[in-house]
Amino acid sequence: MSRPHVVIIGSGFGGLFAAQRLRKTDVDITLIARTTHHLFQPMLYQVATGIVSEGEIAPATRVILRKQRNVRVVLGDVTTIDLTTRTVTSRLLERITETPYDKLIIAAGADQSYFGNDYFAKYAPGMKTIDHALELRGRILGAFEQAELSDDPEERERLLTFVVVGAGPTGVELAGQIAEMSDKTLKGTFRNIDPTLARVILLDAAPAVLPPFGEKLGKKAAARLEKMGVEIQLGAMVVDLDYDGLVVKEKDGSTRRIESQCKVWSAGVQASPLGKQLSEQSGVELDRAGRVKVQPDLSIPGHPDVFVVGDMMFVEGVPGVAQGAIQGGRYAADAIKAELTDGQTPEQRKPFSYYDKGSMATISRFSAVMQVPIPGTKKKFETEGYIAWLGWLALHLVYLVGFRNRLNTLINWFFAFTTRGRSQLAVTEQQVYARTALDHLSEIDAAVDPAPDKVTPESEAG
Amino acid sequence: MSRPHVVIIGSGFGGLFAAQRLRKTDVDITLIARTTHHLFQPMLYQVATGIVSEGEIAPATRVILRKQRNVRVVLGDVTTIDLTTRTVTSRLLERITETPYDKLIIAAGADQSYFGNDYFAKYAPGMKTIDHALELRGRILGAFEQAELSDDPEERERLLTFVVVGAGPTGVELAGQIAEMSDKTLKGTFRNIDPTLARVILLDAAPAVLPPFGEKLGKKAAARLEKMGVEIQLGAMVVDLDYDGLVVKEKDGSTRRIESQCKVWSAGVQASPLGKQLSEQSGVELDRAGRVKVQPDLSIPGHPDVFVVGDMMFVEGVPGVAQGAIQGGRYAADAIKAELTDGQTPEQRKPFSYYDKGSMATISRFSAVMQVPIPGTKKKFETEGYIAWLGWLALHLVYLVGFRNRLNTLINWFFAFTTRGRSQLAVTEQQVYARTALDHLSEIDAAVDPAPDKVTPESEAG
Repeated sequence: MSRPHVVIIGSGFGGLFAAQRLRKTDVDITLIARTTHHLFQPMLYQVATGIVSEGEIAPATRVILRKQRNVRVVLGDVTTIDLTTRTVTSRLLERITETPYDKLIIAAGADQSYFGNDYFAKYAPGMKTIDHALELRGRILGAFEQAELSDDPEERERLLTFVVVGAGPTGVELAGQIAEMSDKTLKGTFRNIDPTLARVILLDAAPAVLPPFGEKLGKKAAARLEKMGVEIQLGAMVVDLDYDGLVVKEKDGSTRRIESQCKVWSAGVQASPLGKQLSEQSGVELDRAGRVKVQPDLSIPGHPDVFVVGDMMFVEGVPGVAQGAIQGGRYAADAIKAELTDGQTPEQRKPFSYYDKGSMATISRFSAVMQVPIPGTKKKFETEGYIAWLGWLALHLVYLVGFRNRLNTLINWFFAFTTRGRSQLAVTEQQVYARTALDHLSEIDAAVDPAPDKVTPESEAG
Repeated sequence: MSRPHVVIIGSGFGGLFAAQRLRKTDVDITLIARTTHHLFQPMLYQVATGIVSEGEIAPATRVILRKQRNVRVVLGDVTTIDLTTRTVTSRLLERITETPYDKLIIAAGADQSYFGNDYFAKYAPGMKTIDHALELRGRILGAFEQAELSDDPEERERLLTFVVVGAGPTGVELAGQIAEMSDKTLKGTFRNIDPTLARVILLDAAPAVLPPFGEKLGKKAAARLEKMGVEIQLGAMVVDLDYDGLVVKEKDGSTRRIESQCKVWSAGVQASPLGKQLSEQSGVELDRAGRVKVQPDLSIPGHPDVFVVGDMMFVEGVPGVAQGAIQGGRYAADAIKAELTDGQTPEQRKPFSYYDKGSMATISRFSAVMQVPIPGTKKKFETEGYIAWLGWLALHLVYLVGFRNRLNTLINWFFAFTTRGRSQLAVTEQQVYARTALDHLSEIDAAVDPAPDKVTPESEAG
């Protein structure tokens, strides 16, 4: 290839928006991603709780980029980035692909963090991928099915106790939706149990719900959740997990056990292990979550051609949300464009600055919290309830990729919010009958590629 | 329970319609099913090829039956029917449930038949369940992804050759949709390969396409498929299958090999192994496909309280289609009702008679074949093309369960048929990275329950 070759790792907000930003630039782009789709992660909890289908929030990356002729999409799991030979190695099944780059944008995202207790994943899947969401859907509905068949009151209680670990936006949204699903969608569908009596517990080691939203909105969200029947337990840190429940440690050091079969983890993130490779090769620092402490221009020291954006990137004041990734991806694309078309040198780059468009989280239908900075001030406009919810609705529709997805989602939302119905409750047999299907994913992975040099979160941790 | 207890096995057309038919009868009904949903199987191929989501064609059985207070739904895989103790045993994970019955309607359906070569299933999944459809979706898209990364022309050809075994309605519909997907939806989305050059081969050992539709319509369907680029190979029997291809035997006894990674099997059915249990206990005969040769009242000899309907039932002249199952389920329900409310004895039952409402199969958008009996004659009205396709469209919409599913499906169809877009192309990582995920299902199953008395098609075959 004679034109400069830009390699982008990841098809999330950072990677996709970077690729699209280079639409008219005279470069060849290769976008390497582990999944075939661009995932609209803010709505993943709705797949898990049966409101929308996975297709609606996960359009095929290739189809999105069909008309952008300067981009090539490669499916594969990136195993190695070599900064010296300027090569990215990826793997799809037994097929190894090496892709040389002139410019590199790394947007490989983050996975759930279990803070060193990786075995937790088996009992409390995260909420980062389509696999996770479908798995959780199966686990939630499976717990109700098992409870219906149990005549042991203790077992039944354990099966009807749902624990969401982590009271950030995803945790709050999940807890709210599990409560709504049991109160409305499943009401009257069982004969031996009353699904409306299911307990939903939202746990966090922190002392507040939705900490980034501040005390006022956090308390409003908590109050609203409690009104829906969600039990909120703050200052409670999970110290052990097993198939039947979990152990939490209170602030006073005492521990207690909660019996619960269906648990979900949204308590923290661990950036892609590719960050560690960058650190080893360039000396760039990582923060505790494995995020790369990039230069002000989002590149890594000594490698002005290598950018890290999105959830893998650490920049003071930039939250790990879609907007952070989108703006980072676009910034990196613009820097590449400026260099190639205007001859801008890396030294001339203006530092990346994050424009906070505000943030929001839904709690239930008709209820959300929203925070929007007031331009020219350091203050934020805060609102909650119905208005915030309408704002959330509109914004998410706008950001969903594809007109048809929007139309289908609008219909699904209309019914989910005005009736008790949810149209996407289908569960595969694999999800119902495989007790720990996620567990098998890693076994399958290991069986397919026993190569010792493969970098996975597990091998990193080990 | 003081009221008579009707147990129904299966939530397909036979089981669900039987349960609904007993809505106003003074009985307690237990519907035991292996899946949480009622599957609208005639549209399963559309899930596999990305047109509709699994939720649209698989609404939750519990939700459908929520208001019918005399029915209780039990999730579980029926392992044993004991005609002497009149008990059905089912299993959900490690939980065993025993359900006694007064009346029993068995509608456990059929699985794909590999005619004794069960290892074929690993390389060519069937098209009977949501798991199958999602697995096939992953395999089709995965083959294109791998081809994009290959620079070996032979390998690329193997990856871009799709073989559909079995030229009945499901095979014809799948072959047509795979061709349309590669010609339209995927056109222009790859850079190294041209998806429109993918080969789709429709194979059958029989000498005709769509044999039940007769020679005229079969030939029209074949011509239409060929126009779409589908290669039709008749009189070709599959004698071996592996990961990279298959071996077919021609009528003259010669064999040849087709290199193809992605294969799907829709060549025959094998009734639920529960039929064999009935045969052993009652002496009822089975046909070659394991279907139960029921009495004229759909009961089994010596057990007028036990009915077999749907794909498990063999009655001369009744095809294994939705209408056959619906009418059989309703007949059994009516017989039970007549006995309980009017004191009708089993001897007084009128024999079941199948009312042929006609049959249809789609070939592509705007094209279908349809055959409707002309009342009072032995003739059938036959049509094909656009009119037949409109008929297919209307009928399938009417039979889809749930207003919202119809609305969403209508939208998905509208876009799929008027544009090249398909909204449900999402694939899980498990589907992409697990080479033979279906294979693992049985391993998982075996790990969960190593009990030797479990009856599965595998253990039957072994």
